[in-house]
Amino acid sequence: MDIALLGGTGDIGQGLALRWADDTNHTIIIGSRKAQKAANKAEEYETELASRGHDDVSIAGLVNEDAAARADVVVAAVPAYHLTDTIDAVADELDDTTLVAPAVGMQRDEDGFHYNRPGAGSVTQLAANAAPDDTPVVGAFHNLAAGRLANLDADLNWDTIVVGDDTDAKDTVCELAEGIEGLRALDGGPLANAAEIEGLTPLLINVARHNDGLHDLGVRFQ
Amino acid sequence: MDIALLGGTGDIGQGLALRWADDTNHTIIIGSRKAQKAANKAEEYETELASRGHDDVSIAGLVNEDAAARADVVVAAVPAYHLTDTIDAVADELDDTTLVAPAVGMQRDEDGFHYNRPGAGSVTQLAANAAPDDTPVVGAFHNLAAGRLANLDADLNWDTIVVGDDTDAKDTVCELAEGIEGLRALDGGPLANAAEIEGLTPLLINVARHNDGLHDLGVRFQ
Repeated sequence: MDIALLGGTGDIGQGLALRWADDTNHTIIIGSRKAQKAANKAEEYETELASRGHDDVSIAGLVNEDAAARADVVVAAVPAYHLTDTIDAVADELDDTTLVAPAVGMQRDEDGFHYNRPGAGSVTQLAANAAPDDTPVVGAFHNLAAGRLANLDADLNWDTIVVGDDTDAKDTVCELAEGIEGLRALDGGPLANAAEIEGLTPLLINVARHNDGLHDLGVRFQ
Repeated sequence: MDIALLGGTGDIGQGLALRWADDTNHTIIIGSRKAQKAANKAEEYETELASRGHDDVSIAGLVNEDAAARADVVVAAVPAYHLTDTIDAVADELDDTTLVAPAVGMQRDEDGFHYNRPGAGSVTQLAANAAPDDTPVVGAFHNLAAGRLANLDADLNWDTIVVGDDTDAKDTVCELAEGIEGLRALDGGPLANAAEIEGLTPLLINVARHNDGLHDLGVRFQ
């Protein structure tokens, strides 16, 4: 499958790109607002993967619109405050492409990190509102610590909860998620259940801050 | 330590009572609005514990006020909509007794279960607002599935996140939590961080509903 990672130059996008390239045969396309930045990062990822024995992996780096146009699945791996603009910019390229939204809205105060729930109900719902009508939107990868995800030497042993109203698109994303070693995909139901998933991310950060020896946390449901 | 479980006749209160009695030497006092109901349940728990070799365990069953008066730690194991009334009823007995709030506010619609965040910020904060000024309030045990907790044959392997503004009270509750086999206490920071913990409970239910083979879920941070 051809997967475009918009905002694939850092944070969660970097980790997903490296993990899929390392663990699967999917074709990875890095998207950015600037083509040169995307190309540089793609080359950097190729070098890292080659050092791990993947000499044959080719990763393209393109401006977001071109990355989206080539993909079967588009992951909008950008911060919540860039999400709507990013989707608007690639909307003409989406059609029935599955759009994956991993973004979470958070704010920090003196007590800790808190979920900043948008009026739409969730950040995932914001993505659905911004996407074209025939583009199925799936929420996934909200609760993965970017640092550990991007460190290919680190084991994950995490769950990711997948929500969406289009069953086929959700199944596709579950399969993509489970292609990553150590990641289990769980069905969270319809898109309307996204807020509680997004709210777990600030909790993971708060727990990591207050407990020695715990950092870059994910979660396992058991 | 003497632990009173207000609302210890069912749900999470039953599980905590049985687990503490089974795994520790703490004295357990069951509280209820009706003394006879508390006494009946206490006897039922004693019978179950005796069948597991604890012939020496004595559990008292009292009206909530009398249970609170005897305790070093009071757990308000009642549903969110009974929480304020329950704390009001025992307020004169609390003084500097540590009060533990495990309640979560949820509502259900056609999509699933959702966190029903009160205007106070969290249900745990509601408990703190209802408690006397000199009573330290600690949030804990929000994310434990009652059915599995009360089944002493079931392994837990769960985390519980503990929040509060009084460090000593929080340490006490962490120790009580870790006295239960298979339960790890994690520090979630101050009481203001409770909402994200409470929001995890409807997520656990949604995941259990949508995934075959998963039920009575708890969570592990790793």
